[in-house]
Amino acid sequence: MVEIEVTATCGDARAGVLKTPHGSIPTPIFMPVGTQATVKSLSPAELDEAGVRLFISNTYHLWLRPGSELVAAHGGLHEFARWPHAIATDSGGYQAFSLAARRDVSEEGFAFRSHLDGSKRLLSPEESMRVQGELNADIAMQLDVCAPAGSSFADLVDAAARTTRWAERCLAVKRPDQALFGIIQGGLSDELRLRHARELEALPLDGLALGGYSVGEPPEAMHASLVKLVPQVDPKRPRYLMGVGTPKDLIIGIGAGVDVFDCVLPTRNARNGQLFTRTGRLSIKNARYARELMPIDPECGCPACRGGYSRAYLRHLYRAGEILGHRLMSLHNVHYYQELVRSAREAVLRGDYAEWAHRTLQRLG
Amino acid sequence: MVEIEVTATCGDARAGVLKTPHGSIPTPIFMPVGTQATVKSLSPAELDEAGVRLFISNTYHLWLRPGSELVAAHGGLHEFARWPHAIATDSGGYQAFSLAARRDVSEEGFAFRSHLDGSKRLLSPEESMRVQGELNADIAMQLDVCAPAGSSFADLVDAAARTTRWAERCLAVKRPDQALFGIIQGGLSDELRLRHARELEALPLDGLALGGYSVGEPPEAMHASLVKLVPQVDPKRPRYLMGVGTPKDLIIGIGAGVDVFDCVLPTRNARNGQLFTRTGRLSIKNARYARELMPIDPECGCPACRGGYSRAYLRHLYRAGEILGHRLMSLHNVHYYQELVRSAREAVLRGDYAEWAHRTLQRLG
Repeated sequence: MVEIEVTATCGDARAGVLKTPHGSIPTPIFMPVGTQATVKSLSPAELDEAGVRLFISNTYHLWLRPGSELVAAHGGLHEFARWPHAIATDSGGYQAFSLAARRDVSEEGFAFRSHLDGSKRLLSPEESMRVQGELNADIAMQLDVCAPAGSSFADLVDAAARTTRWAERCLAVKRPDQALFGIIQGGLSDELRLRHARELEALPLDGLALGGYSVGEPPEAMHASLVKLVPQVDPKRPRYLMGVGTPKDLIIGIGAGVDVFDCVLPTRNARNGQLFTRTGRLSIKNARYARELMPIDPECGCPACRGGYSRAYLRHLYRAGEILGHRLMSLHNVHYYQELVRSAREAVLRGDYAEWAHRTLQRLG
Repeated sequence: MVEIEVTATCGDARAGVLKTPHGSIPTPIFMPVGTQATVKSLSPAELDEAGVRLFISNTYHLWLRPGSELVAAHGGLHEFARWPHAIATDSGGYQAFSLAARRDVSEEGFAFRSHLDGSKRLLSPEESMRVQGELNADIAMQLDVCAPAGSSFADLVDAAARTTRWAERCLAVKRPDQALFGIIQGGLSDELRLRHARELEALPLDGLALGGYSVGEPPEAMHASLVKLVPQVDPKRPRYLMGVGTPKDLIIGIGAGVDVFDCVLPTRNARNGQLFTRTGRLSIKNARYARELMPIDPECGCPACRGGYSRAYLRHLYRAGEILGHRLMSLHNVHYYQELVRSAREAVLRGDYAEWAHRTLQRLG
């Protein structure tokens, strides 16, 4: 099934191998987001070539369209999306809460109306597991309750307690051949976070995710919380920081002992012409790049940079609304993130993670 | 420079090799359209793998944005768009006429305001050649006058006469290392078409294009005109039918002796979910494909069909507005067109073009 073998540590940072039914993946790893069974603008072959071995898809979206039974008729997401490596699916809870109309949260689950056709739906822990079972990803996520930033302590306590009860309900109905990760909540309270981690660690979950970060709090508050919490989360299980983040967030998260990340940033920013480089971000919209013949990042080995596409050409494609621009910029950003976690892993293996992190953050500016 | 060597004929159909500074290309050949220095949604590597060896880009669009001097600073379109094979550029006349605001056509050229920023421009034969020289394609097209469908005989005569004068002006200023094709006009008048062909054949043009077709006349009228005209156009020069067309148009055009085609159909139809198959077109929007696990066309060797993407997955991507759907459908359609002209060429070489054409048209329905 899914488990982690930690092969080296350096301070709290760790390097290892995540074993899945679709291959063993070096960690730390970054998962691009493939909401609708496709990582926006990229092909499976391009993701593979970028070193991606795991992406995360979206239960809410696929449940509503095209329907998980259609995916199941193909044999699951791997066959539907033609992806030979590992896949995770989130529970759909976040989208049921943020996208759906007239949602109603109770102990039973999220009752809501579809944002596509207005149909009435109930996303319960059981229904989420049924849908994720049909999607047949390697890793399913439990349905959880994510209290918004700024919630009261009492609300954070309630959200964590319900999340534990829902983890138990998910475990009771999950497919035996599918891994299930629990999700630690607790906002920015170190005490609550740790208490919730202990509750979930007591359950036979295959991995422990950190949810409820990057929901509006200052990045420094998240970093401080991670540095205290992550080293105390069961080291025998994969630790997954959900929906995070910037290159700096990854560097700090890995330093705290996170193994797995996902975030829409590389693909979403590409769509807006924002590119990650070793010396910080650049926006291709900026007129200063109009006549630049150099590639995005001369140190980058991605097909856009190595292929000799100039910043001027990419800016032209962006302004002309041409898909190739979106593709090349997505490719670059996804490569950048893969390269970042690969370098971090090497630093852990070399035993100089802190120096590497300091140097890399300094260059990022 | 650019010339054709005809290696076999079968009736009026011919198979040959188009020699260009960027390689020798088997004919008949179909050029995808890369209006803004990119064939919509596809990468150079994908076009290459589909067998594309020549695409046509757009002088009007690139002149206005990003400007031909920027392309020249890269060394030309090949370097700008990272395309190692041959490129043609059209003259920009058609777009100056159809897209620009407040255009004014005179013997001098097209005076108009840019559809992008309202700036005043004059597209004369000399300016078109200057811009095409900066774009540095292998094949430039002369600025011509295309009388709309339904024009009077007198207007058709005037358009053809001015086109000849503009061909002479283009020849007078063209770069010596760039091929220039003339454009035969004359609407649906066999007499005018032939007379205009003779006028242009008298000039040292590297190829002869057939313009002013597919501008609103019934396809049968175009086919009848092509069958009479093309066999009489100088067989020593490449014959290029501009902006045409459907698979049937290509089969009839090749039968009449056309060597080169271009058309937006494969890429534009892909954007709208319309796919070409050996048994006719299908629209992926149609609900009948919602649960079909088979590929677009089981006989097709394109990455979409060979890659095992189901019709149901493509329909899902199309409905979800996902770029990968657009990409896979464009790839399929471009492969289809390349495969069609490749099969036509083989039929000419085998000496059974008429039978092949009949059989292929029958299957298309």
